[in-house]
Amino acid sequence: MDERIAKQIEFALELDKEKNVFRQTHLSGHGRNENDAEHAWHMAVMAYLLKEYSNEPVDIAKVMIMCLIHDVVEIDAGDTYAYDKEALATQKEREEKAKERIFSILPEDQKEELISIFDEFESGDTPEARFAHAMDNFQPLLLNNSNGGGDWKEHDCDAASVYGRQSKTKDGSEKLFEITDAIIKANIEKGSLRSE
Amino acid sequence: MDERIAKQIEFALELDKEKNVFRQTHLSGHGRNENDAEHAWHMAVMAYLLKEYSNEPVDIAKVMIMCLIHDVVEIDAGDTYAYDKEALATQKEREEKAKERIFSILPEDQKEELISIFDEFESGDTPEARFAHAMDNFQPLLLNNSNGGGDWKEHDCDAASVYGRQSKTKDGSEKLFEITDAIIKANIEKGSLRSE
Repeated sequence: MDERIAKQIEFALELDKEKNVFRQTHLSGHGRNENDAEHAWHMAVMAYLLKEYSNEPVDIAKVMIMCLIHDVVEIDAGDTYAYDKEALATQKEREEKAKERIFSILPEDQKEELISIFDEFESGDTPEARFAHAMDNFQPLLLNNSNGGGDWKEHDCDAASVYGRQSKTKDGSEKLFEITDAIIKANIEKGSLRSE
Repeated sequence: MDERIAKQIEFALELDKEKNVFRQTHLSGHGRNENDAEHAWHMAVMAYLLKEYSNEPVDIAKVMIMCLIHDVVEIDAGDTYAYDKEALATQKEREEKAKERIFSILPEDQKEELISIFDEFESGDTPEARFAHAMDNFQPLLLNNSNGGGDWKEHDCDAASVYGRQSKTKDGSEKLFEITDAIIKANIEKGSLRSE
């Protein structure tokens, strides 16, 4: 086996570990916690299905690969819950280290390509990154809402924090933000989300 | 919420069930069984990373969405192990019924589009379908090999059956079939796979 494909295969096997990184979101039907691989898969399919609601035209292949790899660094850095302030403070540093280690398994050209896609997502500066971020918010929101907002309830979340995070959805898709807004309001109404 | 987006969201939630369809393949590190969502995610990332080894040029967005949805029917029909002859006999009928029910949740145009992509994969008649099939074979092969061929051992598989299935990899990628062949031979050598 030549060195190039050996590196690519080693990276493919490294990715497998994402299936053991569990998130705070629960599967629909009051299921178990979701893992990063499942979340990324769901985001990528939803991006394809909902692309007509992107505020700007997008290269859907780029959005999909962005969704598929956006959590790779969590293999080392773990999942940081969106509303965990303590963990958020060290997230950037932990993830930068992980990014360097993990993508360095690849041949140099693919390391550069994937880091560039990963960084584009993180920056949120392109139509593709904005739409991928909308998926990163909208997918767990749908699951959580299907479970009566249980994830918010468990973490005693307040509406302002949720709106803060979900504002990124609006940058990617006004239409999906309308639905997000209705879901948040309904969850405040039924007491799954604190209004203050 | 208008009817179109309500249907799309209902379908997105239906997809969540793929995370509870477990396959015969085990995660690397002698882990638990893998589920369909994880398998599809892994295939799609690998398709992107290994696209240079496709025998023919491919539209990578199409390959990725094909990989991502190719097991949707298993929500109803369950996973059919590649070497389970009894289950294979009824697989087609079970999956056709599931395909109609599940994709009918979508708006008509997207139902048609996704069924067309699903059928293209099944037929294996295009460069994209051939390369996606190579991923469908190569991804579990890598995991199984990383676990010393344990999945083959568990099912007392013979090399001829494995070669029969893996021949599809060659149609998608001569290069990946070379590696497949070396992996099969090494597993026969160490007794994880019966030679006859």
